[in-house]
Amino acid sequence: MVSQIMAGHGKKRSVIREIFEYSKARSAQIGAENVFDFSLGNPSVPAPACVNETIRALTNGDSVLLHGYTSAQGDAAVREKISDYLNSLHGCGLNKDLIYMTCGAAASLTITIKALTCDGDEFITFAPFFPEYRVFTQSAGATLKVSMPRKPDFQPDIADFESLISENTKGVIINSPNNPSGVVYSEESIKALCAVLDKKQREYGHPIYLITDEPYRELVYGSVKVPFVMNYYNNTIVCYSFSKALSLPGERIGYIAVSPNAQESGDVYAAVCGAGRCLGYVCAPSMMQYVIKECIGAVSDISVYEKNRNLLYDNLTEMGYECVRPDGAFYLFVKALEDDAYAFCEKAKQFELLLVPGDDFGTPGYIRIAYCVSTERIEKSLPAFKALADLYKK
Amino acid sequence: MVSQIMAGHGKKRSVIREIFEYSKARSAQIGAENVFDFSLGNPSVPAPACVNETIRALTNGDSVLLHGYTSAQGDAAVREKISDYLNSLHGCGLNKDLIYMTCGAAASLTITIKALTCDGDEFITFAPFFPEYRVFTQSAGATLKVSMPRKPDFQPDIADFESLISENTKGVIINSPNNPSGVVYSEESIKALCAVLDKKQREYGHPIYLITDEPYRELVYGSVKVPFVMNYYNNTIVCYSFSKALSLPGERIGYIAVSPNAQESGDVYAAVCGAGRCLGYVCAPSMMQYVIKECIGAVSDISVYEKNRNLLYDNLTEMGYECVRPDGAFYLFVKALEDDAYAFCEKAKQFELLLVPGDDFGTPGYIRIAYCVSTERIEKSLPAFKALADLYKK
Repeated sequence: MVSQIMAGHGKKRSVIREIFEYSKARSAQIGAENVFDFSLGNPSVPAPACVNETIRALTNGDSVLLHGYTSAQGDAAVREKISDYLNSLHGCGLNKDLIYMTCGAAASLTITIKALTCDGDEFITFAPFFPEYRVFTQSAGATLKVSMPRKPDFQPDIADFESLISENTKGVIINSPNNPSGVVYSEESIKALCAVLDKKQREYGHPIYLITDEPYRELVYGSVKVPFVMNYYNNTIVCYSFSKALSLPGERIGYIAVSPNAQESGDVYAAVCGAGRCLGYVCAPSMMQYVIKECIGAVSDISVYEKNRNLLYDNLTEMGYECVRPDGAFYLFVKALEDDAYAFCEKAKQFELLLVPGDDFGTPGYIRIAYCVSTERIEKSLPAFKALADLYKK
Repeated sequence: MVSQIMAGHGKKRSVIREIFEYSKARSAQIGAENVFDFSLGNPSVPAPACVNETIRALTNGDSVLLHGYTSAQGDAAVREKISDYLNSLHGCGLNKDLIYMTCGAAASLTITIKALTCDGDEFITFAPFFPEYRVFTQSAGATLKVSMPRKPDFQPDIADFESLISENTKGVIINSPNNPSGVVYSEESIKALCAVLDKKQREYGHPIYLITDEPYRELVYGSVKVPFVMNYYNNTIVCYSFSKALSLPGERIGYIAVSPNAQESGDVYAAVCGAGRCLGYVCAPSMMQYVIKECIGAVSDISVYEKNRNLLYDNLTEMGYECVRPDGAFYLFVKALEDDAYAFCEKAKQFELLLVPGDDFGTPGYIRIAYCVSTERIEKSLPAFKALADLYKK
């Protein structure tokens, strides 16, 4: 018969996808305007104008070139544009032969993990974390260890992290701005984390790769800066997706960037190319590659996210909810009003609030609110959040 | 360090890739118009007009919907359109919940193989075969056995095939119209193959899946019919890509269709969904999904391929080359004029002919000619083929 592990992964869809399907069904019953779906990290603002303008312009050109295969690792001119762009921002010494175009963030991660993993390898990540990290590492034959966060600020707990590193640690996955907490790891956190990694690399005599999953890099509010990790640690691999910055999550376009200072960076890049091949990623969608070439650096108008962040954070904390004020991404990570976040989310459905329990993110007792919706939706939902809180005051 | 297996896959350039690089260098020396590059299977005809028209129309609509996530398995309306279309053509009883949208043929195959594979599993395919089948099956932890073709017609050799089936056979991969031979498996072949599979399923008491990789389905000439395998065998999984029919190879869009008559088809589909998740395929590129919804059934103008087939086949056989007359795809698979196809291809370079040795396709002593080029290129190349043949007459 089929692989029961795969059938299991297919039947037990991620909680987020389950809620997504519930939301569609519920919307069909009572109308989408009556469902407060805060479950999905689907950008609610349109792509910058240049995206659709570029697409239209491209379709008036040579169809065979536009829709034809690029090199497996991506069109050379597109990769050069990306490395030039990153160098101009971060002075990181990249070149096109360290950039591999991917079908989005999930592809960036599965390819990178597959490229690195040998028998018995372990990866470490920090709670709260995107649940698919567990699926991706297990699927590559590795195991995932989880470091619990410092409370209440949800920065990495460096001592806890250090205690998890072993001779078998192949890599560490960080995600900042973080899904689901919205927290941006401070420069202090990054420096401390890299210092521990450097020490442990020397101790074990082999590289430990720092995989930085950063689809939310551009989604930060106020004057907050997201440290460019490659500049703090040599064995860094960036897994990027344009899904959030350009509001293109469905188009599956992103890249992997291997640090030029990584030990034997050419071998790391070759392994990325090999893993892409093994997983069936031959070239990333061609037209979207050319769109990136024209639109890199553009960012959707994210002012609505900041407005939503403020509105939701201020109102929810006033209602008595506890949460860390997010500096980035478009998530609020809130302490559930009972220990069991699943039960809490079930109760929230009474008020048509669709929230995601934090358990799958490695943080039981919390729930995620994706506020990438219209501000009007947030405003309309506030009485529901109030009613939910009141339920617990009785 | 990184996985040496992956680094190996990344470093070992495919023969086709080597020729591609040689072609670029040689073109720079003597001009592209003087190099007869028959190495790449990149469609040379534009996408049907509806494709780019639909793209332009879509970009004038709602950007958030257009570029947003669909369900992991693909947009429901798109999947319904595809199942309706296949039912109307083949009366096969599909429904949308047996269709899984993919990022193209390679993704369709890696997902399907991963979905099926348990420890110790074996797959069988028929030479000549697309070399990546070996990479995909090995990457999933399975082994690939190869059945040699019947000569001279390159249909499956059913007795040889039967001798390869064991208790561990999980699946069989066929590719018709075939890359690289251009041969379409006859209804007689399909029936004989399915009869053997049915017998062996009963003997071993477990399903053996028939994976049919058919990106070239629509590329057939004259009155040739490609049997729809699902109608001949219950445990069939179709791996399709729109890359050739719609001339969209770079866009990475295709689907997996699980037969409604497959044993526990729901479990098979769940395993496909689970494998897609594990490999990092979350939703296929959204805009291209919507393009498929509008353009399914359209086919690029393939008359140039048929014209090229006739021109090349007639002339080459007249010159003394031996090959099976291809009924589909855009390849001619020719017996090399010496035993060593690599040596033959090296000699062909004297006449600026770039051909691909058949060894990597599991068929030493043959060469592949991809005739998806302009007819003018074919015409201009004929004296070079003649000169090459003459070399062996001395």
